[in-house]
Amino acid sequence: MTVKIGLVGTGTVGGGCIDILQKHKQDFQRHLGVDVELVRVCSRNPEQAAAHNVADIFTPDYRDIVNDPKIDIVVELIGGTTVARNVVLEALAAGKNVVTANKALMATHGQEVLDTAAAAGKEVAFEASVGGGIPIIDPLKHSLIANEIGTVMGIVNGTTNYMLTRMADNGMGYEDALKEAQANGFAEADPTADVEGFDAAAKIAILASIAFNSRVTLADVYTSGISQISPVDLEAARGMGYVVKLLAIAHRTPKGIDVRVHPTMIPATHQLATVNGVYNAIYVVGDAVGETMFFGAGAGSGPAASAVMGDVLEVARHVQQGVGPLVGCTCTDQLPILPVDELQMKYYIRFTVSDKLGVLAAMAGIFAQYNVSVHSVVQHSKKESTVDVVYVTHVAKESDIKAVIEEIAGLDDVLQGPPSLIRVEE
Amino acid sequence: MTVKIGLVGTGTVGGGCIDILQKHKQDFQRHLGVDVELVRVCSRNPEQAAAHNVADIFTPDYRDIVNDPKIDIVVELIGGTTVARNVVLEALAAGKNVVTANKALMATHGQEVLDTAAAAGKEVAFEASVGGGIPIIDPLKHSLIANEIGTVMGIVNGTTNYMLTRMADNGMGYEDALKEAQANGFAEADPTADVEGFDAAAKIAILASIAFNSRVTLADVYTSGISQISPVDLEAARGMGYVVKLLAIAHRTPKGIDVRVHPTMIPATHQLATVNGVYNAIYVVGDAVGETMFFGAGAGSGPAASAVMGDVLEVARHVQQGVGPLVGCTCTDQLPILPVDELQMKYYIRFTVSDKLGVLAAMAGIFAQYNVSVHSVVQHSKKESTVDVVYVTHVAKESDIKAVIEEIAGLDDVLQGPPSLIRVEE
Repeated sequence: MTVKIGLVGTGTVGGGCIDILQKHKQDFQRHLGVDVELVRVCSRNPEQAAAHNVADIFTPDYRDIVNDPKIDIVVELIGGTTVARNVVLEALAAGKNVVTANKALMATHGQEVLDTAAAAGKEVAFEASVGGGIPIIDPLKHSLIANEIGTVMGIVNGTTNYMLTRMADNGMGYEDALKEAQANGFAEADPTADVEGFDAAAKIAILASIAFNSRVTLADVYTSGISQISPVDLEAARGMGYVVKLLAIAHRTPKGIDVRVHPTMIPATHQLATVNGVYNAIYVVGDAVGETMFFGAGAGSGPAASAVMGDVLEVARHVQQGVGPLVGCTCTDQLPILPVDELQMKYYIRFTVSDKLGVLAAMAGIFAQYNVSVHSVVQHSKKESTVDVVYVTHVAKESDIKAVIEEIAGLDDVLQGPPSLIRVEE
Repeated sequence: MTVKIGLVGTGTVGGGCIDILQKHKQDFQRHLGVDVELVRVCSRNPEQAAAHNVADIFTPDYRDIVNDPKIDIVVELIGGTTVARNVVLEALAAGKNVVTANKALMATHGQEVLDTAAAAGKEVAFEASVGGGIPIIDPLKHSLIANEIGTVMGIVNGTTNYMLTRMADNGMGYEDALKEAQANGFAEADPTADVEGFDAAAKIAILASIAFNSRVTLADVYTSGISQISPVDLEAARGMGYVVKLLAIAHRTPKGIDVRVHPTMIPATHQLATVNGVYNAIYVVGDAVGETMFFGAGAGSGPAASAVMGDVLEVARHVQQGVGPLVGCTCTDQLPILPVDELQMKYYIRFTVSDKLGVLAAMAGIFAQYNVSVHSVVQHSKKESTVDVVYVTHVAKESDIKAVIEEIAGLDDVLQGPPSLIRVEE
């Protein structure tokens, strides 16, 4: 039999999928015994469809796909949580299997999507929603299932990793790094979702849900971006034997799930420390397997399409062999989310203050007042009568650190802009 | 239903599997909906079984397991290609699914095992045969199937990687590094299979067979070990911006499969270059996904058992849901194996020669005679009137390099022991 595919969305990833199908259709038949055929393509942009030679199967209305009785698998590649949600839910309700690359949808409406799939007895696959082409969701749902996963953390946003790499290696400032990333097509015109960590937050919500068998949504993830980071911080970290990465972190703790995205100092010897440029990597620790890491290109037409088409072919194998969903929703537990204020770790904090007598003493007093023990403090003079003061604390409570920062911000005429706050992950 | 497991072999890996089953049996039911029960254990060593509290289900005869009608999955963890082969083939013939960690068996009798499984309509899973706990066979057979894989290469032997790391970081000699590895339990009393590269050769045969959809056996893999490598070589490589690793390499080329194991210089910036100690990593390049890498512990009770039990649970899921094998033998093509003599690359060659007038000129003449163009030659004086002469060639043909080495070996009273030969992979 031929497994029939309907594709919604012909942008970068959708175009990549069409290319793979056109290039490897015969290989899939020979190697996998799977015969897949793209029978319908929907896009807001007919020219994109025409550019990929699929004008003859083009439709401007996704309903022509979700309602087409001959289609077995609907591939949703438009992104977002509005039309995409309709496409996915309507396709499942109409008895189609669904493959999606939509991190926002899965991180916010994942439960609804998986419940709808279960009710329909159909599959939803979403490997491409995290880490581009890197196989990570599949390993977590299959190869690593004998483990209790304690940690899943990673570099899951290529834009910010590119920027931080350029800032660290070339001393480039934040704004210049952002402009270069935009010029190279690694950052969007509005970079907010990337630089503020929301993209990474959606991805760690998805990974944590699978790794810990407990639903974590985007709203559960404490998120802090890289916009306050300067080359000064990266240089200082290097001097201490650390590297700064925007990490998406999820730990299983006795009290619940600790899940967050923020700039993080990791030892330069950590396997994640050498993941540079637009590359992504996800580091997983299981009680049996120990440390593992999955590395690759986190974005781009080919990598994302590799993940989407891997899912499509896997689902097609099942359709062809008459096999229903083997794995549905894996969130069988209900673990609490740990409030970020209760976390305890080491902190790197850089304040830029006016070069006035008494400022340092006042700041030291505030650290002492909140019982935050300081491991080291280094002062760098800057131009225009300002001074960079870099604190590294011993293990402290997040809520105390916040109080310290707030209080110091209240010192008269002292603080020049928000501090740079980097949490330390040993 | 309860899926019933019979386990043959209670050594390091078998013991790890029993531990996982005892620890996580309830979790598997809750998270995966899979109820697995260990019903029979076979070992040459009854004390091992007793130590894991499975004396009550112990048998000294594997036939009690392969012939037990209630057993669904036989787990073979005794290794080797004699008794293990019988266990696997008899279990399949008796209608059991099989999970094995046996690299030697799969690299030499893989076709026979997979044919027997196909004839019986049963599954054979062997994730643990390569890379310990690292998911790599499963990603190649599932997540990455939309790609044409061009390269799979990696550090797949922890013993030699530990030794090379100690030699590079601490200037330790080969013999001392080996002794330390043995003292730490990272090398066996007879280290031949590890240090001569045979263990890595079996693993790359398995990976290449899957990645290229064409059977590669142990006998097809050109293999050269690390016993001629000295800290001098690692230091010289570092000076050139390279790192030396025992790499298992498989490339798809227009003329066939290039597959080999040997000490290799890779750029210090390559993702494999920072994989140190007993860790393993497998680097895969696909036409859509680009570069990916899978990192983790390549050996040890927990990691290997993680991979074995991941397979067991996956097969148990299928048994429970009444699903037959989804993926059988993937070797649908018949690509030729490229003779190693036809390879062309750059070479690092260090000769230790007696410090006599005219030796260098004679050697230079031999390089010229075989049209091997030399990029650099460096001479280091050593004690006892010998000299280390290090050549780095431009791209040359393997057969010419062999001829050069043979001819130089024939120079009167010149060569002190075999040269250190390191191929360069850019």
